[in-house]
Amino acid sequence: MGKRKKPNRATDLRRLLRVPSDERIDLAARDPRAVPTGPGHKSAGRDATARLGRRLAGLQERLWAAGTTGDRRRVLLVLQGMDTSGKGGTVKHVIGMLDPAGCRVTGFTAPTPEEREHHFLWRVERELPRPGEIGAFDRSHYEDVLVPRVRGLVPPEEIEARYEEINRFEQRLTDDRVTVLKCFLHISYEEQRRRLLRRLDRPHKRWKFSPGDIDDRALWPAYQEAYEIALHRCSTPNAPWYVIPADRKWYRDWAVARLLLEHLEALDPRYPEPDYDLETCRERLLKGA
Amino acid sequence: MGKRKKPNRATDLRRLLRVPSDERIDLAARDPRAVPTGPGHKSAGRDATARLGRRLAGLQERLWAAGTTGDRRRVLLVLQGMDTSGKGGTVKHVIGMLDPAGCRVTGFTAPTPEEREHHFLWRVERELPRPGEIGAFDRSHYEDVLVPRVRGLVPPEEIEARYEEINRFEQRLTDDRVTVLKCFLHISYEEQRRRLLRRLDRPHKRWKFSPGDIDDRALWPAYQEAYEIALHRCSTPNAPWYVIPADRKWYRDWAVARLLLEHLEALDPRYPEPDYDLETCRERLLKGA
Repeated sequence: MGKRKKPNRATDLRRLLRVPSDERIDLAARDPRAVPTGPGHKSAGRDATARLGRRLAGLQERLWAAGTTGDRRRVLLVLQGMDTSGKGGTVKHVIGMLDPAGCRVTGFTAPTPEEREHHFLWRVERELPRPGEIGAFDRSHYEDVLVPRVRGLVPPEEIEARYEEINRFEQRLTDDRVTVLKCFLHISYEEQRRRLLRRLDRPHKRWKFSPGDIDDRALWPAYQEAYEIALHRCSTPNAPWYVIPADRKWYRDWAVARLLLEHLEALDPRYPEPDYDLETCRERLLKGA
Repeated sequence: MGKRKKPNRATDLRRLLRVPSDERIDLAARDPRAVPTGPGHKSAGRDATARLGRRLAGLQERLWAAGTTGDRRRVLLVLQGMDTSGKGGTVKHVIGMLDPAGCRVTGFTAPTPEEREHHFLWRVERELPRPGEIGAFDRSHYEDVLVPRVRGLVPPEEIEARYEEINRFEQRLTDDRVTVLKCFLHISYEEQRRRLLRRLDRPHKRWKFSPGDIDDRALWPAYQEAYEIALHRCSTPNAPWYVIPADRKWYRDWAVARLLLEHLEALDPRYPEPDYDLETCRERLLKGA
């Protein structure tokens, strides 16, 4: 975590964190405490994130403005990770820097009876960002290849089919001008223990805790494996997965904000040109209208 | 706008800004530049709003937490006002201080063909905050008693009926544990001119402008009258209207944030009590689970 004189280039982050589509990823080989590029310590990280926030807000306004004149582009940030990995915190600290009017945040929990009666992508489809918006999913359709696999709730061949359905679904989104940015918040087993203990210790955090969170820890290796498979099978050129080192919250926020910025910069949304005559309007207003 | 040694009590704001239900309000008698209570100048106002933001965020978390265990309460902030009155700015600066995961912001523009085929409350109903959420409407069902009245698009007796429908609708919301907070952002004719000119002068604001905004200024008196009637007819004990002096943006933000805070404090949401044994869970985690 030594200080750096010169932060690496932005592209390094995408390259460093991207899950390759051609081989299975080994999560154990990715350090959740890593600080592979960018700010090297907490206060610099928080400052850098705040600066990214101002740039993000500017790009968001352009995206929104373009959307008002028919530009269908939008962004969907998908957040996945084990309990306490910081999905909610990322929404709060990264999406929280944007104008809420242009954001659509959805948290997905266990499916309701109504949702169970539909295809697993049904509830996701309804919550997609509209043109000009930045959407964020706290959990997503990936839950449907994780929980059922680990708990054996669905036959293996159906899980197999779901990876392909997800890839086709995300391809369709991409075709429909949705930029899909998928971040796996990677925390360590030890860090999860610390965070769960903190939830128990702080009265205003106890509501977030459930004893089932401890039971789930026994399934940690099975979940890591299910993630490795999902990340491998569904990291496509148009909608790749990124593994975010998430043991350090400040680095997690910075990395997600930075990835979001790079994707928005690549879109390069523009304010629409006025379709009216500026001078005529100015004169009308100045002359008393 | 003189400095005050001691800000007036919070309750003053509600009393001062509330629209009485028993008599028609005279908007011309309410000064859009007034600073009736609270901070007396811009920098103090911005600081005070930021402090309110931290308290709002704390209450929002409690409301959300309570919602996870069956508390159905939520808040709906309805923002209305003439063009450039700052509805979008209020969302950005007030709702923007909250956790976006618990917010649901909806802007209503001219109804789509699909929306026109339904009752005017249909599209509003679909965007209501869910339990635990804070919703914000940038324009709302009130557009349907304003535009049609001013432009004569709907027979007068139908407009009459709509006031009653709105009151019944909002009563039903109140019965369903929705706190309805309605704010009319009151700006002056001159301030609107300044803001429209600013939109023309600044390249990144031109997309917000339309020459129709100038045409609408000819209808200013008719709109003020339509607002006076709507505010009078629909300021009910359970869902009163507040008139926010909005020529000063910092005061507008402070006043809306303050009203929101007072309503949330009145709800007094509580974190749910843990339904598990703290010590057992702590020990399991410390012993290696």
